[in-house]
Amino acid sequence: MKSPMNIKEYTEGILAKDISVLSRAITLAESSKEEHQQISKQIIERILSHAGKSVRVGITGVPGVGKSTFIEAFGQLLVQKNHSVAVLAVDPSSTLSKGSILGDKTRMEKLSVQKNVFIRPSPSGGSLGGVTLKTRESILLCEAAGFDYILIETVGVGQSETEVHQLTDFFLLLMLAGAGDELQGIKRGIMEMTDGIAITKADGTNIDKAKSARAEYANAIHLFPPTESGWIPEVKTCSATENKGIDEIYEMIEKFVLHAKAKNLFEKKRQHQNISWFDSLVMEKTRAHFFSNPDFLTRYNQAKNKIETNQSTILSAVDFVFS
Amino acid sequence: MKSPMNIKEYTEGILAKDISVLSRAITLAESSKEEHQQISKQIIERILSHAGKSVRVGITGVPGVGKSTFIEAFGQLLVQKNHSVAVLAVDPSSTLSKGSILGDKTRMEKLSVQKNVFIRPSPSGGSLGGVTLKTRESILLCEAAGFDYILIETVGVGQSETEVHQLTDFFLLLMLAGAGDELQGIKRGIMEMTDGIAITKADGTNIDKAKSARAEYANAIHLFPPTESGWIPEVKTCSATENKGIDEIYEMIEKFVLHAKAKNLFEKKRQHQNISWFDSLVMEKTRAHFFSNPDFLTRYNQAKNKIETNQSTILSAVDFVFS
Repeated sequence: MKSPMNIKEYTEGILAKDISVLSRAITLAESSKEEHQQISKQIIERILSHAGKSVRVGITGVPGVGKSTFIEAFGQLLVQKNHSVAVLAVDPSSTLSKGSILGDKTRMEKLSVQKNVFIRPSPSGGSLGGVTLKTRESILLCEAAGFDYILIETVGVGQSETEVHQLTDFFLLLMLAGAGDELQGIKRGIMEMTDGIAITKADGTNIDKAKSARAEYANAIHLFPPTESGWIPEVKTCSATENKGIDEIYEMIEKFVLHAKAKNLFEKKRQHQNISWFDSLVMEKTRAHFFSNPDFLTRYNQAKNKIETNQSTILSAVDFVFS
Repeated sequence: MKSPMNIKEYTEGILAKDISVLSRAITLAESSKEEHQQISKQIIERILSHAGKSVRVGITGVPGVGKSTFIEAFGQLLVQKNHSVAVLAVDPSSTLSKGSILGDKTRMEKLSVQKNVFIRPSPSGGSLGGVTLKTRESILLCEAAGFDYILIETVGVGQSETEVHQLTDFFLLLMLAGAGDELQGIKRGIMEMTDGIAITKADGTNIDKAKSARAEYANAIHLFPPTESGWIPEVKTCSATENKGIDEIYEMIEKFVLHAKAKNLFEKKRQHQNISWFDSLVMEKTRAHFFSNPDFLTRYNQAKNKIETNQSTILSAVDFVFS
């Protein structure tokens, strides 16, 4: 058992880049205990003005695409470029925390021993919304501790990327060469969230396939509307094991950041993310207020059933719920 | 002034395919007067079991893509195929109601004089959510009156397609040949909502450009995940003025309907649409309950401001709103 720290000690420890204090603060932020949440909120409130100075990169892709291997290579490149790197995992089922039989240390062994690198597995348990909310707080804590690149890993299925997309400045989709079956695993809608695509495992006999996939995706993306900032997503190939193409992905992200900052859209996007996150939490609370009433819940379920059995229009069903 | 009708007269008139009664019922449904809404709800409740038997096609595209011309040609083909066709416009700024200096009659003059065709301009005023809600009721009324193809026109910008997508079985995106500048007008995310794309104005000197655009889009779409039903969107070219390729779009939609029905996904999708519409209205009402309280609204705006000026975390801001 470590001795308890007060808010001042937490705050000072984080700002002094003390990794063990940072870890403990993240653990508090992830805790579902009310008393931990109270302390955590005060810590985050105090470090808030020191946060916000990193580049937040969301990294997604189906299982098997090589996310961990990519992050290990990309993280090391960032360190070489004099960045400090925090790696966070969002998905409760993320490979970072449990997916690998080898465990985290072995899986990112080269990256994890680097100075200026902090790897944090996914918080276990809790709803996905809760996990991403906690991740948002973790990002702020890492930023206050001076990390200037935050990599947030998520799995390219389910709801998590939509939420991670809302947390990040740049959203990178990792894809395998040979568009076909593996697309089945990707959620419709992800493509139009990405700021960049990296075709992974472009090595050995795979190189040609990867190159032609790159050309195909680059063509396809060109046919789609640009992002709000006018940024046209780029497509790269890379091999994490041969350490090829990783630098080009770094350059793409840096170029994007310059582009967004030049158009004053970098901060604007974050503001927008914050407000929409705030709004959805407010919405969720107003909803919870009603749904915690058993009578309301009963009427809601009855109304839903009436719609499903074609006994009621939607408008009448809503009237019934609030009657 | 027409003499008032009672609910029974409305219901019977609609089921007897009396177009003037249908029109009046839609006007009631669109009305924001509480008394009209009360009557309208009862009418819709009564016709509900007779509704639901049409194919609902959403048609979107940027202004200038030729939506009205396409609908005129496509509607006539549907009539030839022994369908009865209702055309509804969703966007408050839709060309169906006000966009054209020539007016509706002239613009769809061939279609509007056909038997078994009903053209209804967009309800004016009201929020977009309100307009699409009204459109949902109008669809049910048209279906009860026996129309078996409902075409819902919307503009490929803003929020409207997301909502129209939620109203329809098949979502058709009209595009001009020459992918480039015109994409700027299309909202990111639409592409992945579409079940089919039609490259319009494929005539005269435009044919080759349209064909190569078709090939490009078909390729691109193939690289993207299929829709939930496993349907891979198809891309067609057409010329409404030369009446070419319109039949292929009809065949694509019929094929889609067969596909969805075979997989039992046709009704399932509608159920899902109904429930999510119901849920969003319930959500909206719970929200309205809080926001109609001036103190709550003040706290909400203060909290928002604190986030924007980096004075508060999102979690603390939410706490403050509900304090």
